[in-house]
Amino acid sequence: MKEATNSSSEAQSQSKKSGKLVLAYSGGLDTSYCAVSLSKAGYEVHSVSVNTGGFSSEEIEHIESNAYKMGVSTYKNIDAVASYYEKVIKYLIFGNVLKNNTYPLSVSAERIIQAIEIVEYAKSIDAQFIAHGSTGAGNDQVRFDMIFQTLAPHIEIITPIRDQKLTRQEEIDYLKQHGVDSSWEKSKYSINKGLWGTSVGGEETLTSEKPLPDSAYPSQLKHSDPEKVLLRFLEGELVAVNGVENSPEINIEVLNDMASAYAIGRDIHVGDTIVGIKGRVGFEAPAALVIIKAHHLLEKHTLTKWQLQHKDYLSSFYGMHLHEGQYLDPVMRNMEAFLESSQAQVSGEVIVTLKPYHFSLDGIRSEHDLMNAKFGAYGEVNSGWTAEEAKGFIKIFANQNKIYHQVNQTL
Amino acid sequence: MKEATNSSSEAQSQSKKSGKLVLAYSGGLDTSYCAVSLSKAGYEVHSVSVNTGGFSSEEIEHIESNAYKMGVSTYKNIDAVASYYEKVIKYLIFGNVLKNNTYPLSVSAERIIQAIEIVEYAKSIDAQFIAHGSTGAGNDQVRFDMIFQTLAPHIEIITPIRDQKLTRQEEIDYLKQHGVDSSWEKSKYSINKGLWGTSVGGEETLTSEKPLPDSAYPSQLKHSDPEKVLLRFLEGELVAVNGVENSPEINIEVLNDMASAYAIGRDIHVGDTIVGIKGRVGFEAPAALVIIKAHHLLEKHTLTKWQLQHKDYLSSFYGMHLHEGQYLDPVMRNMEAFLESSQAQVSGEVIVTLKPYHFSLDGIRSEHDLMNAKFGAYGEVNSGWTAEEAKGFIKIFANQNKIYHQVNQTL
Amino acid sequence: MKEATNSSSEAQSQSKKSGKLVLAYSGGLDTSYCAVSLSKAGYEVHSVSVNTGGFSSEEIEHIESNAYKMGVSTYKNIDAVASYYEKVIKYLIFGNVLKNNTYPLSVSAERIIQAIEIVEYAKSIDAQFIAHGSTGAGNDQVRFDMIFQTLAPHIEIITPIRDQKLTRQEEIDYLKQHGVDSSWEKSKYSINKGLWGTSVGGEETLTSEKPLPDSAYPSQLKHSDPEKVLLRFLEGELVAVNGVENSPEINIEVLNDMASAYAIGRDIHVGDTIVGIKGRVGFEAPAALVIIKAHHLLEKHTLTKWQLQHKDYLSSFYGMHLHEGQYLDPVMRNMEAFLESSQAQVSGEVIVTLKPYHFSLDGIRSEHDLMNAKFGAYGEVNSGWTAEEAKGFIKIFANQNKIYHQVNQTL
Amino acid sequence: MKEATNSSSEAQSQSKKSGKLVLAYSGGLDTSYCAVSLSKAGYEVHSVSVNTGGFSSEEIEHIESNAYKMGVSTYKNIDAVASYYEKVIKYLIFGNVLKNNTYPLSVSAERIIQAIEIVEYAKSIDAQFIAHGSTGAGNDQVRFDMIFQTLAPHIEIITPIRDQKLTRQEEIDYLKQHGVDSSWEKSKYSINKGLWGTSVGGEETLTSEKPLPDSAYPSQLKHSDPEKVLLRFLEGELVAVNGVENSPEINIEVLNDMASAYAIGRDIHVGDTIVGIKGRVGFEAPAALVIIKAHHLLEKHTLTKWQLQHKDYLSSFYGMHLHEGQYLDPVMRNMEAFLESSQAQVSGEVIVTLKPYHFSLDGIRSEHDLMNAKFGAYGEVNSGWTAEEAKGFIKIFANQNKIYHQVNQTL
Repeated sequence: MKEATNSSSEAQSQSKKSGKLVLAYSGGLDTSYCAVSLSKAGYEVHSVSVNTGGFSSEEIEHIESNAYKMGVSTYKNIDAVASYYEKVIKYLIFGNVLKNNTYPLSVSAERIIQAIEIVEYAKSIDAQFIAHGSTGAGNDQVRFDMIFQTLAPHIEIITPIRDQKLTRQEEIDYLKQHGVDSSWEKSKYSINKGLWGTSVGGEETLTSEKPLPDSAYPSQLKHSDPEKVLLRFLEGELVAVNGVENSPEINIEVLNDMASAYAIGRDIHVGDTIVGIKGRVGFEAPAALVIIKAHHLLEKHTLTKWQLQHKDYLSSFYGMHLHEGQYLDPVMRNMEAFLESSQAQVSGEVIVTLKPYHFSLDGIRSEHDLMNAKFGAYGEVNSGWTAEEAKGFIKIFANQNKIYHQVNQTL
Repeated sequence: MKEATNSSSEAQSQSKKSGKLVLAYSGGLDTSYCAVSLSKAGYEVHSVSVNTGGFSSEEIEHIESNAYKMGVSTYKNIDAVASYYEKVIKYLIFGNVLKNNTYPLSVSAERIIQAIEIVEYAKSIDAQFIAHGSTGAGNDQVRFDMIFQTLAPHIEIITPIRDQKLTRQEEIDYLKQHGVDSSWEKSKYSINKGLWGTSVGGEETLTSEKPLPDSAYPSQLKHSDPEKVLLRFLEGELVAVNGVENSPEINIEVLNDMASAYAIGRDIHVGDTIVGIKGRVGFEAPAALVIIKAHHLLEKHTLTKWQLQHKDYLSSFYGMHLHEGQYLDPVMRNMEAFLESSQAQVSGEVIVTLKPYHFSLDGIRSEHDLMNAKFGAYGEVNSGWTAEEAKGFIKIFANQNKIYHQVNQTL
Repeated sequence: MKEATNSSSEAQSQSKKSGKLVLAYSGGLDTSYCAVSLSKAGYEVHSVSVNTGGFSSEEIEHIESNAYKMGVSTYKNIDAVASYYEKVIKYLIFGNVLKNNTYPLSVSAERIIQAIEIVEYAKSIDAQFIAHGSTGAGNDQVRFDMIFQTLAPHIEIITPIRDQKLTRQEEIDYLKQHGVDSSWEKSKYSINKGLWGTSVGGEETLTSEKPLPDSAYPSQLKHSDPEKVLLRFLEGELVAVNGVENSPEINIEVLNDMASAYAIGRDIHVGDTIVGIKGRVGFEAPAALVIIKAHHLLEKHTLTKWQLQHKDYLSSFYGMHLHEGQYLDPVMRNMEAFLESSQAQVSGEVIVTLKPYHFSLDGIRSEHDLMNAKFGAYGEVNSGWTAEEAKGFIKIFANQNKIYHQVNQTL
Repeated sequence: MKEATNSSSEAQSQSKKSGKLVLAYSGGLDTSYCAVSLSKAGYEVHSVSVNTGGFSSEEIEHIESNAYKMGVSTYKNIDAVASYYEKVIKYLIFGNVLKNNTYPLSVSAERIIQAIEIVEYAKSIDAQFIAHGSTGAGNDQVRFDMIFQTLAPHIEIITPIRDQKLTRQEEIDYLKQHGVDSSWEKSKYSINKGLWGTSVGGEETLTSEKPLPDSAYPSQLKHSDPEKVLLRFLEGELVAVNGVENSPEINIEVLNDMASAYAIGRDIHVGDTIVGIKGRVGFEAPAALVIIKAHHLLEKHTLTKWQLQHKDYLSSFYGMHLHEGQYLDPVMRNMEAFLESSQAQVSGEVIVTLKPYHFSLDGIRSEHDLMNAKFGAYGEVNSGWTAEEAKGFIKIFANQNKIYHQVNQTL
């Protein structure tokens, strides 16, 4: 392997580089290595972090002060929480999207928004390069590259970590050598936090058989007594929690705080990466799980059978395409039009009970509820039609099966 | 409405009826009313109960002795547990079928098997009539009638409860008047028990907003300490629990006992009835939930992305058609062929931890596990391909989106 | 059968009926019988025909003068061509909908619009009854009844033909007896004409094996020399034919005239009726076939792979639900939102060559064409990427299959 | 671009190569270049052509004698017609697969079989290398590489044309220089012939707007009088043409001869390549088009509505995956199990009329025909049920729509 010395490996190239470069920067070891080495190589490094709900303002301040120590020209934090909700999370809720029936696609969704925000920033400052710290083994490189290439075909992408395949220790040594002597000891679990969930990777998730220990999850059980929460949806969006109205993204934060105190929403996702291998990752997504299940229950009451059925088909593929970085395929906009249209009557309240490690849905109240005693109650005496009408219905409903078996004398 | 006196309302007709009649008999008030009134009307009533895992041998003896008190000519209990598993449950597991992502379709599936067993029995004794006790308001009438009409077009169907629309009190009075003085006080919850789950209906499930109280569920929490269970699957079928091999239907029973002691598998299903109204019913299905989730996890490790995706499409419709009584549509056999074929590699062990009210999946072990470190670990350094190959992949994978946006200058 | 004398058979009832009744009237034998018998029965009959493109103004005048001879109080023709296009045909084009890959659903679509127009008219004049002339054997009764019941639950539906099951001769005799002595000799083929196609039923279509003779089709071959036609689409809608701009519904008429002179668009549809039996019907739909195929070709050039794929799923179900009278299910609006959204770039010209009995598509011109030499030509030398990049793409694209077969040693 | 001199470009490398190499050889310019240059480079070249129905025995003899002139060690022709039918074509018929509703996927399907036959041959002779002549711009490289890599991970793939990106003239010059002086003048159209169709590429297909001239198609119109053909299917397979029984692959050849004399089955396919660009190619596939349409008609008579519907979903994806080289994904075997199962009753005769440039389907005869007058005729008087039963059916069938609109007061 000689990539490290060929012309596409910018960072280590002998010749001095120059030009504006936007670096997707998180403050971790990989992107710190990028910040230092790209600055040393001669680029004018504009480091950017995109907050999708994972950073507190203290953390951002800390990241910023570190960034300048790495030699970057500028640092900027972009608050993308609202656009994250508006562009992606909203549709994941409309679609009740859980990848492989488990995972709310939190990291997948975040990367999309981060990529869009970064490329827009790069265009706004006329950058010639964008750098990111993804390895060559996972999904993130695909999501970043695809969106950068699509939205800014003229900007060159620089990926030192992928190109150079350095070990952690080599990166630490390089940083020390260049005067950056942070404490880089590897935490036992790698955590990625955001509004829609926190992923947790560790040595257990590299196996197929081991669960994560409780302690690996960022949130720990604080309450043991059950607590009822009232979620109010308006056209599919979470507009109030316990009667307090707020923007949906703030409601999600509020619910994350409430439900994480019950250690709700933990699981391990096993899925297919875009590069064809299987991957396994733990996550904690209290609000995402509670909201999706509550929203789905409200839909069971307010949508027709065929709305539920066809929504499932589209939502499953919406999740697959999003996961695979195809957010900019126009089919995603077409699916969003369907999903938006399907939410017209999805309004009402859902009563949820939070309990240690799990939750249950008590029920719903909605003026659009199709389960309405006026039209007859399931399994009770038929009030909307007669016995003869029911027999006529069944006789004709059964026609094709009867004809099939008589013609084919299969029975 | 004059149905009660017209020619299709056999039970109350003035003229003496005669002929062999098979009655689907459960021992409850409705089918007891049928047994007495049809016997009095002159039919030779052969009462049949079909055990799909809900009856103990004591209960069957009790049902039998009661049946003769109602005046029936014969009583027979058909043990259908093995055929229930083989004809339906097996495929519900292969397909991970949970209607509306919640309900294991236990009652729907039972009715199908009961109908098939009853009509086959009726044919074997040359019966001219089959009677069942369904009302005109629900799904069961559709399932029974469709299967009877399809498998035995020459046998007439008699449905006193649907035709006469009597109140509970009228039925009790009628029975007393004819010397059957059981205690018919209505239990607060109507329970339907079977191998794949127990349904629970009550005044709460007639509303949209009220949960069932804990006490409404037949099983109560007995254990609080978590317990690990090892499920072994062979080509999609549960062949051993904790290392003890047995037939899948017995393994399901064993697991029902273990998991119900943790009050696992409770929920409320909200769905669309075949007659177009919405219905709501509680259920407790400990083994069904644990098995489906464990089986699905094993599939995530052993099936390809497209197997998982297309299985979902077919399984969702398999569940819909089964629910709607279309079990005899030949498309069900076609889907079963797909599902059976998909299970060739779904073998291995799943480690489950049972806890109070919920359970978690620790992981799996399988020689067919596609998550295999030999081929590279997700998110780590790429071992199976180079950075340049990854870039080539992404560049071409992104082609269509890039072309679309360049052609349309949408960005 | 005693329906003819029971209480739901209004027309022949002894007691005088009264009240405003809207009759869906086409001028044929069945609806003429309805007009006379309902008038005689005492109803105030308001006869309405809905023109969905099948009637010329001469024909409408003729229908009107006949109607008054039948004793109706009023006659009204509703011109629904524009709303027919806007509410249904537009989406059938967006979706390239051909039922069972053959039939443009012309009759299905017409009945929906006719039903909607009739019930709206009935509501506007405060009618208490709506009557239609459908038999009890087919699809039309379902479409009419469903839409009437849904949009006007308070209006009673009267169906003399379905209820009385009269023979043709009995109807003719009744009409003669009441002074209506038209020539009712049965034409050899029953024809239903509309903007989106003309259906043709006859003794051949009652068999499975006989084709319709050429002479059964309303249009006959007039031209033998091929002729090029240029269709211009704007966001999926046909806005110009041969450079002449017009409203889409007029363009359809123009194209019907052009293509029917080549006897294009004939076929026989075999399909499943809503009542479960199979049906067979001939049709001639020159514009529908040409437009759908041309529009689809334009889409193949302007939509992405996934847009094409998911459109197919939705369109197929859109056609099924429409065919089955479920036009008012809100899922239809959701699907329309998807379809509408998908057409944003479906603009350009399609060159079609009309020939005797068939046509071919020459090609398209569109500024949204994704087949653009700038991005490389299929099968030629790769210009947009290198051989190494292609190899990297394939290596990773093949990952899952390689892993699957290595793990399972199946090969 | 320096690929031509780097280590993966075997053919031109300075150092002498050695080892057994299997070359996929067709006798055209590209594979002739490969044969000569790889032989010169030192490989022991075993050239193989795989006949999928495109070569006559004279052509094979000609190819063989040419191969030896190129310096190959051995030449072998593999007759894969029967395995082509059995492994792929059969399922394309069962699924009525026409990509984008037009193209029978003939080239896609051929490449799969060719790749499988070649890799099996390579393994049988313990080859260390497989070479093919695909460029880096199209689909074939993906299909070949994927199947080679999956079925023989240890065999190295050599692709001189893709690596060296030579012009036609450079190849001709090279061949001349090495004593191979065939007449390589480029024919105006590149033709790929096989049992399931012949593709035709030319300067017109590189544009979006130009049709191919009649003369570009290999078959020319010979007959003008219509001719009836009787196709007999047994469980979905074509077992006889005009009463003459033969193996399905021979029947396809017979029908190709008959229908190509009418210039039937010509069209232009526009589709998405695996590498993301759009491609356009002409084809002539007389038997494929006639068989698929005839088979589909027989299915419309013999399958239930849901069989038709779900078959469409799976078949569409079966075609997509096959096209994209994913033939070895196990999901293909699962889909084949469904398709095979669906054909149990698809037996009977289809009457087809061949005419100049097009054909029509007269009808079918089958003992499994579900359109059976015994069960009532569509649109005629209902014989299988009463008017009241039809009304009961509709009333309940309409329930959900009625409830939805009443609850939501949308109307």
